[in-house]
Amino acid sequence: MFLRRDHLNNFLYSPLSGANSSSPLGAGGLRVGIIGGAGYTGGELIRILINHPNVQISFINSKSNAGKPVASVHADLLGETDIAFSSELSNDIDVLFLCVGHGDAKKFLAEEAPSLKGVKLIDLSQDFRVAANANFEERSFVYGLPELNKEQIKSAENIANPGCFASAIQLGLLPLAKAGLLKEIYTTGITGSTGAGQSLSATTHFSWRANNISAYKTLTHQHLKEITQSLQQLQGSFSTSSETKSGLYFVPWRGDFPRGIYISSTIDCNLSLNEVNQLYKDFYQHEPFTHVSETMIDLKQVVNTNKCLIHIEKAEEKIVVHSAIDNLLKGASGQAVQNMNLMFGLEETAGLRLKGGGF
Amino acid sequence: MFLRRDHLNNFLYSPLSGANSSSPLGAGGLRVGIIGGAGYTGGELIRILINHPNVQISFINSKSNAGKPVASVHADLLGETDIAFSSELSNDIDVLFLCVGHGDAKKFLAEEAPSLKGVKLIDLSQDFRVAANANFEERSFVYGLPELNKEQIKSAENIANPGCFASAIQLGLLPLAKAGLLKEIYTTGITGSTGAGQSLSATTHFSWRANNISAYKTLTHQHLKEITQSLQQLQGSFSTSSETKSGLYFVPWRGDFPRGIYISSTIDCNLSLNEVNQLYKDFYQHEPFTHVSETMIDLKQVVNTNKCLIHIEKAEEKIVVHSAIDNLLKGASGQAVQNMNLMFGLEETAGLRLKGGGF
Amino acid sequence: MFLRRDHLNNFLYSPLSGANSSSPLGAGGLRVGIIGGAGYTGGELIRILINHPNVQISFINSKSNAGKPVASVHADLLGETDIAFSSELSNDIDVLFLCVGHGDAKKFLAEEAPSLKGVKLIDLSQDFRVAANANFEERSFVYGLPELNKEQIKSAENIANPGCFASAIQLGLLPLAKAGLLKEIYTTGITGSTGAGQSLSATTHFSWRANNISAYKTLTHQHLKEITQSLQQLQGSFSTSSETKSGLYFVPWRGDFPRGIYISSTIDCNLSLNEVNQLYKDFYQHEPFTHVSETMIDLKQVVNTNKCLIHIEKAEEKIVVHSAIDNLLKGASGQAVQNMNLMFGLEETAGLRLKGGGF
Amino acid sequence: MFLRRDHLNNFLYSPLSGANSSSPLGAGGLRVGIIGGAGYTGGELIRILINHPNVQISFINSKSNAGKPVASVHADLLGETDIAFSSELSNDIDVLFLCVGHGDAKKFLAEEAPSLKGVKLIDLSQDFRVAANANFEERSFVYGLPELNKEQIKSAENIANPGCFASAIQLGLLPLAKAGLLKEIYTTGITGSTGAGQSLSATTHFSWRANNISAYKTLTHQHLKEITQSLQQLQGSFSTSSETKSGLYFVPWRGDFPRGIYISSTIDCNLSLNEVNQLYKDFYQHEPFTHVSETMIDLKQVVNTNKCLIHIEKAEEKIVVHSAIDNLLKGASGQAVQNMNLMFGLEETAGLRLKGGGF
Repeated sequence: MFLRRDHLNNFLYSPLSGANSSSPLGAGGLRVGIIGGAGYTGGELIRILINHPNVQISFINSKSNAGKPVASVHADLLGETDIAFSSELSNDIDVLFLCVGHGDAKKFLAEEAPSLKGVKLIDLSQDFRVAANANFEERSFVYGLPELNKEQIKSAENIANPGCFASAIQLGLLPLAKAGLLKEIYTTGITGSTGAGQSLSATTHFSWRANNISAYKTLTHQHLKEITQSLQQLQGSFSTSSETKSGLYFVPWRGDFPRGIYISSTIDCNLSLNEVNQLYKDFYQHEPFTHVSETMIDLKQVVNTNKCLIHIEKAEEKIVVHSAIDNLLKGASGQAVQNMNLMFGLEETAGLRLKGGGF
Repeated sequence: MFLRRDHLNNFLYSPLSGANSSSPLGAGGLRVGIIGGAGYTGGELIRILINHPNVQISFINSKSNAGKPVASVHADLLGETDIAFSSELSNDIDVLFLCVGHGDAKKFLAEEAPSLKGVKLIDLSQDFRVAANANFEERSFVYGLPELNKEQIKSAENIANPGCFASAIQLGLLPLAKAGLLKEIYTTGITGSTGAGQSLSATTHFSWRANNISAYKTLTHQHLKEITQSLQQLQGSFSTSSETKSGLYFVPWRGDFPRGIYISSTIDCNLSLNEVNQLYKDFYQHEPFTHVSETMIDLKQVVNTNKCLIHIEKAEEKIVVHSAIDNLLKGASGQAVQNMNLMFGLEETAGLRLKGGGF
Repeated sequence: MFLRRDHLNNFLYSPLSGANSSSPLGAGGLRVGIIGGAGYTGGELIRILINHPNVQISFINSKSNAGKPVASVHADLLGETDIAFSSELSNDIDVLFLCVGHGDAKKFLAEEAPSLKGVKLIDLSQDFRVAANANFEERSFVYGLPELNKEQIKSAENIANPGCFASAIQLGLLPLAKAGLLKEIYTTGITGSTGAGQSLSATTHFSWRANNISAYKTLTHQHLKEITQSLQQLQGSFSTSSETKSGLYFVPWRGDFPRGIYISSTIDCNLSLNEVNQLYKDFYQHEPFTHVSETMIDLKQVVNTNKCLIHIEKAEEKIVVHSAIDNLLKGASGQAVQNMNLMFGLEETAGLRLKGGGF
Repeated sequence: MFLRRDHLNNFLYSPLSGANSSSPLGAGGLRVGIIGGAGYTGGELIRILINHPNVQISFINSKSNAGKPVASVHADLLGETDIAFSSELSNDIDVLFLCVGHGDAKKFLAEEAPSLKGVKLIDLSQDFRVAANANFEERSFVYGLPELNKEQIKSAENIANPGCFASAIQLGLLPLAKAGLLKEIYTTGITGSTGAGQSLSATTHFSWRANNISAYKTLTHQHLKEITQSLQQLQGSFSTSSETKSGLYFVPWRGDFPRGIYISSTIDCNLSLNEVNQLYKDFYQHEPFTHVSETMIDLKQVVNTNKCLIHIEKAEEKIVVHSAIDNLLKGASGQAVQNMNLMFGLEETAGLRLKGGGF
């Protein structure tokens, strides 16, 4: 069997040109720890990292599963790794991923900050995403959307990894914000069931969700805060307020599929379609994962990849921007690894050239 | 076996009070013909009519299937009817349903008008829905949305049955139009695959459509015309034009489920949520199939029924109206039967008290 | 609105020829009570009974939901009924349906038997299905598979309603058993998620079950007992034992769809395919719901109906019998109503001419 | 953008110990050609090869799409490769994959054999799988199931890549065959819609296939020949014949999911479950992709991977072997790459450490 020998040192890693000269990487690659490895984002992170050419997983912490093989929880990993969950928490690592629930990241850090000295953090919860919460326990968090904050991410010690809907919506709007063109934005988005996590609930019951659609958190989704913050970063005049005639009106829907987010945003725009497309292509020209499509996009073009695809249409004075991501990858664990790559001077796509599902 | 003996006269029908005194119904019930019975809407119509207490099916015309049992095409009807498709076209009927493609209804009527004297027509295509097309071959078509035009339908000789998206969107907006409150409307809708009919195409291939979402006909869907016409009927000032600051901006999505349409429309509104809810309840208080829900609705509440459910939410100055129907029933064949019931003075719900799928 | 007025007496019921002369039916139709109305089979029973022409629902008991509208739990019933759950238990009814969990039916009857004097019982659990358990509290239960025990059912006071897999498998095998032809039977069956009930579990989580298949209870499914009992009733020599070279080897699979059961059974058989087909057609010739198809069957031909469809193939000395039902209807609540119809001399199909889902 | 520069020479490849000394690999890695790159297996092959560390794609031939970007057909590859389809056919390559329809591979080779001198072939059709067809145009084909024929594959010039059902069924039976334990085998298998290819048909229409199950090719599936051949290779006494009391009785089902095959085979067996498990573990101990699971397996554990998982249960004298693969990977293109790796002395798992879909 070819179980990944993640604790051993058979890595392909060698320092890349442009790598941070203060990189702590030794012969064995980046030493990574994971807190909360038994959940969906934790599992997806493990799936990526066991094949990442520059990473060794030092520990995967899960209180409730300590001692059990990771593959006993993430059953699809059977035959691919022999790592077990541990109760370990060590600072003998380069970076720690927090894959815990909203609120729990802050609690964790409040308790463990002293023992994590010198360890970089990538937090997948919403606890540190907005400026008001971005400084905590002497750590300062950078909002980890590479297409927006790449340079800050490269030198960051702590990353607040964006939300899934937030990533898909922002990537569909950033070029317009940079051009100062955002006014009122009417957005509908649909998300796969994995967006709701692995806890059981009425709306994640198969008998209910199969072949079903429903709205939730209409106009009040918690990601609106981080989205608005990013849009304001590029277009200071933007705010969600009826007085300014700007704002983001977002209706989220639950979809009857496991993975993926699809967004359509309608916006007033006087530019020609060509001009709009050029704005987007210019904005994303150096981005490895975000691409503008000349033809209509569908959700499955991005499922099981770290990509975001965007397609724009125009009729009369309205443009509609469609964007799609995999909520667990570009919307969570994939983007977290992208941030790690940037923080440590690795190739941005390392470990993220994933074979898409296709179907 | 209990095959329906549709040609025999074991009916429960008895004239209802309020029935049109000129009703042509004899002992055997309404005599019905169907043109285009091999398609999706034709099949759904047959499923309803074989159990309708006041109907006998006189013929189901399908050129390509003449002579074959209906159950050889609509395989789920095995054991429920022994009717065969015929090449017959007779005017010895009370009402004829046209379940043919867009454009073909007009062609059919151009050729067959003389031989259909005295026969009422219910056309499921879009050929006669808008006023400019509503008069043809000495026939005048009433737009068959009962919640809008019930009295005209009762006395109509010819019905243009509304489109599926058109039905769901209108039912979500009519009370606001009546109150003169419509301005700009931002609508997203998602439809099941049966909305695309039974012809094979890349976007109805299972391998593509499963777990997938995609937009199509963005801001240009053909149903916009009939929707706008109805909204203007109740609110004369409404028009889709950037000058009037009113309009309907509709983004349709293909869904990965067979049946159903779910709509969310976002609109500026200064009324309180209570006031809006009251508008809707007043408007639909006598409607047997359209109901306002106090709690969030989901698509499967209406699948395999003729119902439309509506739920309204408000945040700041925006309301969001959610509406859901089954595209083949309230969006097509169920509504066609509802229209038939009204035209012939039958109970409006006759044959339409369908057990929903539930799951 | 046309809410069903189930407590009123606007029924179409009139005594049918052949009706049990001791029928307790009055002007309002059969008075029905339901215990456990908040679960899946309870909900499905309500969906059927609110449209049943000969029934009035006297009470729907649910301890945890007493006082709440039925439509608050079975949300698809919004607009169709205004019945509320009650804590009532009365013997002023003709028949009581028990829709409670396995084991709970027996407990219920142990406590309530005295207060149910004169009330007929239809139990949907497995508690009274096999002969060893069929006599309890002075009540004697008939196994309610109409295709097997129709005459006994007509005069029964108490019915043990068959299991879902058990119904589908038996209907595929009964004609062979009657002909004494059963030997070793290799059966695979797949079931929809509603077969697992509405409780949340890892294998009913949407994220897990979507696009997934897995086996469970391999060769040990609890329905084997009632199936074997029925087969022995027709073919005394049949038993599941390696010594007799007969037996039923059943591998159940979980399917990624909400409703339906599909079965394929492979059996040695020296008869010609024509002879086998004739056996089946003869056996089911008077059955309104079970039909032999000349062409391959698929699951959706029966979903949302009370039908069972059967198709038989032969190659060399093996026949394969395919059978399909809706697990909640012919596999549970539909069959329960069929049994009720038979017990009270109603038309066997009353209330069960359901429009199938088609898609 | 980080489009793969597949024609350039930025590869990680370096000769591995144990590599075939006659390896034609130069600095740029294996030069690969693909015939029939527009279909499902062709697309999946491209998805793998663009990320394979030891491969450069020389051409992807598709008559009907010559000149078009590969991503215009396999839309999920947008942003990942800029290769275009070509009409090229060159022998300046190391290996050619044939991803054409059954029958077309033979036609192709009949025409092009002279121009392919020195090029190794991997054919994904069924044309050369059974011994009677394995020698053609001076080429001799090895049946490419690595778990059965690894040594022959390493030195093969031509590979007949196994069928999808054939792979899953054989991997579930080979250890028993090697131990001479196979008698009568009763097998049910279910396959995703991609197994039917991308051509449109009634049974790949979404409206039909969603939530549906049906049997097809009962006891007559074309893969039975290659399966029987392999089983006889290990257990000479095995044959499908009623006289020998051995044989494989296979009922294939169409599943309502895009990817994957799940198999359950029931077989008489006197060994203890421990003994059987040991047989399987011994047989597969050195295999990187085929693993025996101690716990029940489900389909999604293998989707989007090249793995085969197996789980065995026992009751009385019967064992049931469950096996699962991804039909497009271990059942087609993944196994083809595995064969390529073996033929050219590469690491067997090179390019095949794929992140599974998980959900």
